[in-house]
Amino acid sequence: MNTQTILLKNRPEGRPTLSDFEFTSEDADLTISSGELLLESKYVSVDPYLRGRMSDAKSYVAPFELNKPIHSGVIAKVLESKNDQFSTGDYVSGMLDWKTKQVSKGDGLLKVDKNKAPLSAFLGVLGMTGLTAYCGLTQIGKPKVGETLIVSGAAGAVGSVVGQIGKILGLKVIGIAGSDEKVNMLKSKFGFDAAINYNTSTDMKADIAKAAPNGVDIYFDNVGGPISDAVLFSINKFARIVNCGAISVYNATELPKSISVQPFLVKNSALMQGFIVSNYEDKFPEAMKNLSTWLSEGKLTYTETIVEGFEKIPKAFIDLFDGKNTGKMVVKL
Amino acid sequence: MNTQTILLKNRPEGRPTLSDFEFTSEDADLTISSGELLLESKYVSVDPYLRGRMSDAKSYVAPFELNKPIHSGVIAKVLESKNDQFSTGDYVSGMLDWKTKQVSKGDGLLKVDKNKAPLSAFLGVLGMTGLTAYCGLTQIGKPKVGETLIVSGAAGAVGSVVGQIGKILGLKVIGIAGSDEKVNMLKSKFGFDAAINYNTSTDMKADIAKAAPNGVDIYFDNVGGPISDAVLFSINKFARIVNCGAISVYNATELPKSISVQPFLVKNSALMQGFIVSNYEDKFPEAMKNLSTWLSEGKLTYTETIVEGFEKIPKAFIDLFDGKNTGKMVVKL
Repeated sequence: MNTQTILLKNRPEGRPTLSDFEFTSEDADLTISSGELLLESKYVSVDPYLRGRMSDAKSYVAPFELNKPIHSGVIAKVLESKNDQFSTGDYVSGMLDWKTKQVSKGDGLLKVDKNKAPLSAFLGVLGMTGLTAYCGLTQIGKPKVGETLIVSGAAGAVGSVVGQIGKILGLKVIGIAGSDEKVNMLKSKFGFDAAINYNTSTDMKADIAKAAPNGVDIYFDNVGGPISDAVLFSINKFARIVNCGAISVYNATELPKSISVQPFLVKNSALMQGFIVSNYEDKFPEAMKNLSTWLSEGKLTYTETIVEGFEKIPKAFIDLFDGKNTGKMVVKL
Repeated sequence: MNTQTILLKNRPEGRPTLSDFEFTSEDADLTISSGELLLESKYVSVDPYLRGRMSDAKSYVAPFELNKPIHSGVIAKVLESKNDQFSTGDYVSGMLDWKTKQVSKGDGLLKVDKNKAPLSAFLGVLGMTGLTAYCGLTQIGKPKVGETLIVSGAAGAVGSVVGQIGKILGLKVIGIAGSDEKVNMLKSKFGFDAAINYNTSTDMKADIAKAAPNGVDIYFDNVGGPISDAVLFSINKFARIVNCGAISVYNATELPKSISVQPFLVKNSALMQGFIVSNYEDKFPEAMKNLSTWLSEGKLTYTETIVEGFEKIPKAFIDLFDGKNTGKMVVKL
């Protein structure tokens, strides 16, 4: 049976390029044994964190191996099953290889209910994206009604969910994004109280201070770099900075420099906490329950950038670093 | 009655100089009313955090006013009392003006028992210094037996106590200090497992990695700047960075730049938390009990740099920024 695969060919230096990826196509023996499933990929998630796994620097997860398939969150259809937990025709989500078809033992796969939400949502608002937003904001941000939340990468997959949860929980929510279109969408579609375009702002520090006249209690940071430097000047006493990502520096070839955070933290008794969503697995049931409820009640909405075609996966991934996505970037096969 | 006072004459730009301070001497009316005390200063604490209060930048406490007395931790003798809580001859500790004699209403003053420890210890190991070390390490560092603790400014007042508490709590303890003499003292007197001289190290990153082969679980940071940059490369997953101070940048006239911490925090699910000791007032009784016990059992020791003479207070304060003190810097009157 023919299957196509995307391998990591080179460890990117700086910004990834198409030549860092290699496509293979082969007639593979996809016969399954007892306990196994044959899966056909339907939606593949591309996420900024994958950039870290393409390097061999120390990280929270092992790096991808060279000349081996890359993997990420995937929604797949069960074409054939010799596993009691899954039936032919089921849809599953899990960390799977960038392959059109593959055999799995079912470990770590979850069944998804396509009647509950569109399949791609299980990679986004009802998947790792939504869990990341929920757990980071509630477990580290510890929001209290009336506080001010600022979100960077606010029009991104995680950021747009963070801001909406912030509104549901009674916060004043300010977003930072990179275009007027995104800024408008944050306010009109996602209900942010204010939004700042960092590409047109001539003084981020002043614009943040103006948008947050009572200061910033929670900063949900997806980007790092100069935007995060500017936020520091507005943090309140006991501020919580949720370090979800640092997309602005993931492609840096030299160690990026920023304003020293220590004096700001000491002066304000402020916290910064990095995390990965799996740290909060015990909160996943609560998170899924709330996210599903809010989604069905229409309190939570989402956008996706859906790119079509297996062969577009590397480009879709690279485009994340130019902010070409609005909301969750997903490739449909 | 003659009393001398030290006023803040100028807000220092960069490193404070003697000309930022003004001495006055006057024959003041120090007659006390009902509820008041007449105090004679015996020991005055000089601390790096006072630098922050000499600026008018936003901070956790209001800045000192120009042409008004500076205040800090002081041990004073009660010369006369019309307050039921204190008797003539008592010794008290509290935040008091830099004056040889002053009238107080007793608010915020604590009686100290000179039979329990030398008076100056109540400004150090049994005072704010010890409480800062204890609360920062236990409440933010959350040490677990067998973990590795690294302390910057390790020969300073807080640092030397932090390291010793670390040993008492079963940690591997590494100190960073600025001279061979201090490094030797950390190991011989305070029981640190290893110590690094940042002034002679040619590769701090490598020296830290060598001293902490299992990585760093807790970093108690008194200094900020390049030393803290170097520690980041050795932090473990779920590391806790206790941001107690940033003496290396307190005198900076331009915003200091450092390596961006965000990628390190995200990669390691690590925490940074700034604090001021008063955040943990509810832990003070526990802290004082443990510190007193450890001191009386000989498990905890301390050094002081005692400078004599009221007129030496500004110079003693300035000398902190050159690391001229070992342990707590105190001025004896």
